[in-house]
Amino acid sequence: MTAEHELPGASRAREHAGAERRRSSAAFEDLGYARPDTGREARLGLPEVVYGPGKTVDQIVGVVRSLLAGNDGPVLVSRIEDGAAAEVGAAVEGGAYDPVARLLVWRPAAPRPFRVVVASAGTSDWPVAAEAAAVATAIGLQVDEVRDVGVAGVHRLLAEKERLAAADAVICVAGMEGALPSVVGGLVGCPVIAVPTSVGYGAVFEGVTPLLAMLSSCAAGVVVVNIDSGFGAAIAAHRMALGTTAQRAVR
Amino acid sequence: MTAEHELPGASRAREHAGAERRRSSAAFEDLGYARPDTGREARLGLPEVVYGPGKTVDQIVGVVRSLLAGNDGPVLVSRIEDGAAAEVGAAVEGGAYDPVARLLVWRPAAPRPFRVVVASAGTSDWPVAAEAAAVATAIGLQVDEVRDVGVAGVHRLLAEKERLAAADAVICVAGMEGALPSVVGGLVGCPVIAVPTSVGYGAVFEGVTPLLAMLSSCAAGVVVVNIDSGFGAAIAAHRMALGTTAQRAVR
Amino acid sequence: MTAEHELPGASRAREHAGAERRRSSAAFEDLGYARPDTGREARLGLPEVVYGPGKTVDQIVGVVRSLLAGNDGPVLVSRIEDGAAAEVGAAVEGGAYDPVARLLVWRPAAPRPFRVVVASAGTSDWPVAAEAAAVATAIGLQVDEVRDVGVAGVHRLLAEKERLAAADAVICVAGMEGALPSVVGGLVGCPVIAVPTSVGYGAVFEGVTPLLAMLSSCAAGVVVVNIDSGFGAAIAAHRMALGTTAQRAVR
Amino acid sequence: MTAEHELPGASRAREHAGAERRRSSAAFEDLGYARPDTGREARLGLPEVVYGPGKTVDQIVGVVRSLLAGNDGPVLVSRIEDGAAAEVGAAVEGGAYDPVARLLVWRPAAPRPFRVVVASAGTSDWPVAAEAAAVATAIGLQVDEVRDVGVAGVHRLLAEKERLAAADAVICVAGMEGALPSVVGGLVGCPVIAVPTSVGYGAVFEGVTPLLAMLSSCAAGVVVVNIDSGFGAAIAAHRMALGTTAQRAVR
Amino acid sequence: MTAEHELPGASRAREHAGAERRRSSAAFEDLGYARPDTGREARLGLPEVVYGPGKTVDQIVGVVRSLLAGNDGPVLVSRIEDGAAAEVGAAVEGGAYDPVARLLVWRPAAPRPFRVVVASAGTSDWPVAAEAAAVATAIGLQVDEVRDVGVAGVHRLLAEKERLAAADAVICVAGMEGALPSVVGGLVGCPVIAVPTSVGYGAVFEGVTPLLAMLSSCAAGVVVVNIDSGFGAAIAAHRMALGTTAQRAVR
Amino acid sequence: MTAEHELPGASRAREHAGAERRRSSAAFEDLGYARPDTGREARLGLPEVVYGPGKTVDQIVGVVRSLLAGNDGPVLVSRIEDGAAAEVGAAVEGGAYDPVARLLVWRPAAPRPFRVVVASAGTSDWPVAAEAAAVATAIGLQVDEVRDVGVAGVHRLLAEKERLAAADAVICVAGMEGALPSVVGGLVGCPVIAVPTSVGYGAVFEGVTPLLAMLSSCAAGVVVVNIDSGFGAAIAAHRMALGTTAQRAVR
Amino acid sequence: MTAEHELPGASRAREHAGAERRRSSAAFEDLGYARPDTGREARLGLPEVVYGPGKTVDQIVGVVRSLLAGNDGPVLVSRIEDGAAAEVGAAVEGGAYDPVARLLVWRPAAPRPFRVVVASAGTSDWPVAAEAAAVATAIGLQVDEVRDVGVAGVHRLLAEKERLAAADAVICVAGMEGALPSVVGGLVGCPVIAVPTSVGYGAVFEGVTPLLAMLSSCAAGVVVVNIDSGFGAAIAAHRMALGTTAQRAVR
Amino acid sequence: MTAEHELPGASRAREHAGAERRRSSAAFEDLGYARPDTGREARLGLPEVVYGPGKTVDQIVGVVRSLLAGNDGPVLVSRIEDGAAAEVGAAVEGGAYDPVARLLVWRPAAPRPFRVVVASAGTSDWPVAAEAAAVATAIGLQVDEVRDVGVAGVHRLLAEKERLAAADAVICVAGMEGALPSVVGGLVGCPVIAVPTSVGYGAVFEGVTPLLAMLSSCAAGVVVVNIDSGFGAAIAAHRMALGTTAQRAVR
Repeated sequence: MTAEHELPGASRAREHAGAERRRSSAAFEDLGYARPDTGREARLGLPEVVYGPGKTVDQIVGVVRSLLAGNDGPVLVSRIEDGAAAEVGAAVEGGAYDPVARLLVWRPAAPRPFRVVVASAGTSDWPVAAEAAAVATAIGLQVDEVRDVGVAGVHRLLAEKERLAAADAVICVAGMEGALPSVVGGLVGCPVIAVPTSVGYGAVFEGVTPLLAMLSSCAAGVVVVNIDSGFGAAIAAHRMALGTTAQRAVR
Repeated sequence: MTAEHELPGASRAREHAGAERRRSSAAFEDLGYARPDTGREARLGLPEVVYGPGKTVDQIVGVVRSLLAGNDGPVLVSRIEDGAAAEVGAAVEGGAYDPVARLLVWRPAAPRPFRVVVASAGTSDWPVAAEAAAVATAIGLQVDEVRDVGVAGVHRLLAEKERLAAADAVICVAGMEGALPSVVGGLVGCPVIAVPTSVGYGAVFEGVTPLLAMLSSCAAGVVVVNIDSGFGAAIAAHRMALGTTAQRAVR
Repeated sequence: MTAEHELPGASRAREHAGAERRRSSAAFEDLGYARPDTGREARLGLPEVVYGPGKTVDQIVGVVRSLLAGNDGPVLVSRIEDGAAAEVGAAVEGGAYDPVARLLVWRPAAPRPFRVVVASAGTSDWPVAAEAAAVATAIGLQVDEVRDVGVAGVHRLLAEKERLAAADAVICVAGMEGALPSVVGGLVGCPVIAVPTSVGYGAVFEGVTPLLAMLSSCAAGVVVVNIDSGFGAAIAAHRMALGTTAQRAVR
Repeated sequence: MTAEHELPGASRAREHAGAERRRSSAAFEDLGYARPDTGREARLGLPEVVYGPGKTVDQIVGVVRSLLAGNDGPVLVSRIEDGAAAEVGAAVEGGAYDPVARLLVWRPAAPRPFRVVVASAGTSDWPVAAEAAAVATAIGLQVDEVRDVGVAGVHRLLAEKERLAAADAVICVAGMEGALPSVVGGLVGCPVIAVPTSVGYGAVFEGVTPLLAMLSSCAAGVVVVNIDSGFGAAIAAHRMALGTTAQRAVR
Repeated sequence: MTAEHELPGASRAREHAGAERRRSSAAFEDLGYARPDTGREARLGLPEVVYGPGKTVDQIVGVVRSLLAGNDGPVLVSRIEDGAAAEVGAAVEGGAYDPVARLLVWRPAAPRPFRVVVASAGTSDWPVAAEAAAVATAIGLQVDEVRDVGVAGVHRLLAEKERLAAADAVICVAGMEGALPSVVGGLVGCPVIAVPTSVGYGAVFEGVTPLLAMLSSCAAGVVVVNIDSGFGAAIAAHRMALGTTAQRAVR
Repeated sequence: MTAEHELPGASRAREHAGAERRRSSAAFEDLGYARPDTGREARLGLPEVVYGPGKTVDQIVGVVRSLLAGNDGPVLVSRIEDGAAAEVGAAVEGGAYDPVARLLVWRPAAPRPFRVVVASAGTSDWPVAAEAAAVATAIGLQVDEVRDVGVAGVHRLLAEKERLAAADAVICVAGMEGALPSVVGGLVGCPVIAVPTSVGYGAVFEGVTPLLAMLSSCAAGVVVVNIDSGFGAAIAAHRMALGTTAQRAVR
Repeated sequence: MTAEHELPGASRAREHAGAERRRSSAAFEDLGYARPDTGREARLGLPEVVYGPGKTVDQIVGVVRSLLAGNDGPVLVSRIEDGAAAEVGAAVEGGAYDPVARLLVWRPAAPRPFRVVVASAGTSDWPVAAEAAAVATAIGLQVDEVRDVGVAGVHRLLAEKERLAAADAVICVAGMEGALPSVVGGLVGCPVIAVPTSVGYGAVFEGVTPLLAMLSSCAAGVVVVNIDSGFGAAIAAHRMALGTTAQRAVR
Repeated sequence: MTAEHELPGASRAREHAGAERRRSSAAFEDLGYARPDTGREARLGLPEVVYGPGKTVDQIVGVVRSLLAGNDGPVLVSRIEDGAAAEVGAAVEGGAYDPVARLLVWRPAAPRPFRVVVASAGTSDWPVAAEAAAVATAIGLQVDEVRDVGVAGVHRLLAEKERLAAADAVICVAGMEGALPSVVGGLVGCPVIAVPTSVGYGAVFEGVTPLLAMLSSCAAGVVVVNIDSGFGAAIAAHRMALGTTAQRAVR
């Protein structure tokens, strides 16, 4: 039997004492086809984010409703294409869609005093950088975008030293040889989060090359997330921001 | 002509106005075979760390002396074996050697109020975790080691929830399938720095498997450093600590 | 000359004494373009399963008819898309199609007392888990589906300990870092069959990462099947079930 | 501070109520450098097995003592070389060492009515098959070894059909092209556990080729463990045996 | 300037004394966009074969005409799709197209006394086996097709021992684990040419797994051609046939 | 905030003193979504080339205009498809499009006395060779194309020894086994720039095989660029030409 | 219980009617630790060859004795090092050892009228070529060695056209870019057996690059064996020779 | 029969009219075990260089003597270790050995007016840079070494702009992420030859990562040679120098 035949009542019956467990760190709701982790906001300071690919519109709608009901903070669906986003948006009011970042957002967070510079190497890296910026903004971080500062014209990056110096964290988005975080990591002391992109061809191997290059960076303490994961970089920044802003209060 | 025949006087002649540039962010010294980046402390809040492999004892001694003279903070040599460490230690007084971490340290930093939990999955991951812990301690972070909490007996990890909750950052060290940061990343909101190790055999591929697993983690915002790089994880923690402690002062 | 021009009479002429060899363990029928292994049911307790891709509708129809005639048990076509399934179903009566599992079934087996828990890490892993569940059900195993118990919210999995404890075997379906079988393997003593999925992007490498992670699992005795092979996992469970139920009788 | 300076008293202080938790499924002991999972026997029907590489002799001795005290069943150290095995054996009485299997065993289990055929493709695959056989024997399975039945002389394998037919599970150990489990999987209905070995050169890639071949087997329901992991195959057989023998009793 | 603007006269001007060099082993014609190697028939006993992909219809027509004029033997275009084949066939009379093999043939050779068995593991391997059979037939070899003799039902292969024994060479076409040539190589003494196919999914990696398995075969003296290259296998058989038939005459 | 909402005025405000910095080696213009490196012509003797993929038509138009205004030399857009090329060409007058090379050019350079032979192994390598030839021509190099001189008919290459001997640099374009530059590198003393192409199938791995073969060439001093990068090869030739022609003058 | 404790009597007891089955195509002897395939000579025209690595001296001695007794033709041990070869040679009289080829031979075959040219690209490829030559000679083929004809000085190869033309098969041994068989394959019509070697460094990847290059050869009908497998190439030549010489007689 | 038993007289007998062919572009000498390409100097402006690994001392001596006799220019043996170098040096007078570069040189060339900057990223890259510098010097190029200018302290590189600007070619030697040539390629217009090194660990994969990064460089026209191939880079520079200096004269 598959989830499509799942009746709302049935799912509710299998719910693990959802009502009372919500808002506790061990809360979750059992929808049959999914178990929204409604305790995540208590544990991590941020509701679970819905990963769009491989889910039906009905599944996304169900999970979003569960998360909106079971949390107070922003609810996001990542990597959702235009068509599905429109359908979900029609079913659940109040969402805003960013087509470049492929992000759907409800209840964006108010800005917190944590500044993230999103630096990207080339114009073609834009969609990934846009996802990082959109997610970061939605979860309450302040974003400053510095674009097209690839190392083949390193004076363009050096011209932005001041903006880099004002950052609490720098997200470096780069494809091809992925050298940007190595140079930035040598200029600033704050966290540098490297995001390899699949931009390029041939020996770039869909982003494997910048991924490996960033992991091998001679700039100490650079950290890396998955290929094209602007999302992962923004959440990593959220974790760092918690240490300086909200985390103390949440505990 | 090679560096071995380099006379101290000659190298000094090629020094790029070393004396005056030291302590500025653009300072460096030219030893001929190396250019210690004495401006790094001003830029990053921490002197350059010497990577041991591939350098002769004489080269390491020269660079260490340059860094001790050109900076105020801790000076470290990473991945240096016992024999070379003894020779370098004999040549430059005041160093302390940790044979498990393979780390040589001069002028360790005073502890700062930033707590790093170093969690390791198995006893065999000890050397990498030890490097993370030793570097972190040397640069002034507070370290709490939680060992042998692999996910095949997840109750051992869950028993340490309180220590994890007290962390400002968690460094997760794991080989084999590298699942530890995924579980930890779902338990805490602070930064989770994943370090894959080369522990295991066959399909572990010298650490490639835990590396890829950590990059693919379903726990959002986990960040990753190079295989076996306890060093990289500790410096990443330093960058995060700057944001909450020293950075403001340094600026 | 190619099989399309093969006349039924011609293929029958080349048949290796099919009638008399059927039902023996060395039986097969030679259709020219295929040799249905009609002895497999005698050897393995289950008829050969037809792998759909790369076969024409006519070929599938021919093989299915041969298997239905030469065996007593369930006949399955795996990985067949909607259109082809409809055509085959029209040609051979009595089949049922599951579009999520992409499975066509004739003569499903009666349930046997062997309980398989199909646990999946995320909602996006659903199609693969659905194939495992559908195949297992068709061949007479009892299936209990536990969905969306990824390790980033490990409390969701721990809440299902009782269902896991009641299993004769657990099929763990997971993409991304593939950590689910490692945690499950530490909770239960019964066989744990790990199925990596191609869910995720970038460093997931179309399922290679969870595959390698599962093979490298620190939970001893976890076994692994091919990427996205819900089918393989179900047949593996069949082999295990034979040991406790039908096998003794069959011999 | 490292574990070497750990005093027994200190580790005992950090022990999490070890005495009372032992024998429960959530038990473990905290030795500082390791947390023997003494609850594993209750959960899985078998004590934790110690993985030798990367551990000091002192660490192995400590963990073995903890496991002997905290469990009733067999205690094993895998992949331990002669020298270390002698030292550990001298420190903890009652162990037996198998140098080909590189296995140290205390308190081997009494034989249970579950027969495992360990079939190996070539004489060079012997050490891996020997590990599978030795571990299986130590944990109470009955072992029948069938050696040198590689598919290039398939009559040698077919001559052993009766022994294969008498198996409750077959462990197939093969390097090079790893074809053995495909042929065996077509001959028997019981579980077939494939173990790729690193035997061969060039395109064998240290066992990657037989690993991939086994995962791609056209024999349905073949399951695979890590390269050279005779150990993993034996524990997988244990899990399958539980279903037919001890598991019912344990529950 | 590109070849499309190339006038016939211009190309003729650049022709390297084509007329007189034709039929010599060092002959070729310079069409500007291509240099048909009209000397190949003298050197290899077979005209150059045109590789279809990446060429325009006009280019293929030009090369085919040059080869027909400059050689006596069969002229083939491989891997050409239906549409392009129809256009080329309309421009150059006398060609025959096999849509499964994707082969266009002019002037097929008369049969020679060299028998090639084309054995394929599964029905899905048909297109690759069909290319081998069609090319072999076109260049004058005698072909006997034995289909669906995969090793998971090895009795199907053993039932064809006589046809295998009558072969001068066996072409083994197999995807997935690619075990067929290992078993065949142990049954016959004649050349065994292994052709890996991209049939399968996941760990088959588009044919890489059977390719590596075939290269690692424990059956001595098996030789391997590129993935899906039925063409390469047929030409390899041609080379072997030369030794026993035509070669002596040609010299 | 994304670039789509970027007003021209705003971008101009963030321009880093563009007007005065132009024509200096450290010049660039900040368009918000891109920073055309208008100083590149001063540094490298050639304006920045626009990489088409991943950019919108509006972005390409903006960057082209900036480069035309900020440089004197040729302005190129590489890897741009017909549709986008037509739109860009309509927006910025004076451009010429080569559909095989996928190249848009404004202000092509006058020919300089530096002769590049572009040798390609097969007719299917034509598009990559065409890109090399078109870019080289656009930036002022003299191009001589030698096509279809693959090593399987090495007499075709040897027949062109004179044209090769007249070259100042040879660009060798080859897919499959990529052997052409090894043979050419043994015939001529001038620079040999190897360009692997993705032509072929199976073990060619989209050009990885010729790439690795070229890097492993036994012909000393062969240099390699990225897969399918006719562009990169042409610019490499430009760098070599600078040494003999324009560079002296530019300094 | 392991084979070391195996008594000769016990192994003989388990022998499957060895005496009577010998000389038949289904013969083998069961030594416990090995099953010499004494029927192989009847099936393939050549006794089984012993692969040395991973076997003890006692095992090799036992298998060699069994093969000498159960066959009439040459008995070979491949890849055996000096020390082990001396021990085996002392135990079994009449063997001859070639230290470069690492080959032990008893009862070499008389020369047959089949000429194999072993062409090697560089002097460093010598050991692999030597294995091919030594095995070919031992099994009765006529060998002509043509060394150091790498394609970077292609005139050296072209100077040997006559020797190549006189070959019944050419074995091409090459490391680095592995281009030799592509050029040879275009010069001769007889079978070309390509052997990649692990000679070279970096991007040669221990022979993977020439392996892939040879598989991707533009010279049609080139066949490939495993990396460094001079042995495999010689046996492949044996298979081809059977077709023209001994095979007819053997049948 | 192997080369060790080769008598000098025998090899001379097989010499292909060596004396008269020497100095012509098609000259070579046949030593049996090697064919020194004595025509290479005429074709390429530089004698063949001897690759040391895999050759015996006697072979190296023989080839060196042949090259000294058959050419006028410098004779080099690359990658030869101390012990072998001493033996060869004792047998052939006049050679000089550089132990860091592992290079043996006879008859070094007089300096030509072509300046190569050898820039290396880290002190650990020294041996590879040393090989580039030593080879370049031996063949008559002028070398300026700029060491330890890794991009994590990019001011160290920018401080050397003048030396870079004076170069006719820059060889960039870098391990880890291999970013140096991307930055240098954006600063200078002359040829940039990138040499990846195996310096680093983990995700550096023995130099694969900097290799791929350099091939993917966003700095247009950067060319790449094999991992650790300082030799290849120097010969590439020789080819570029020919264009500006010696080539014209040689022709």
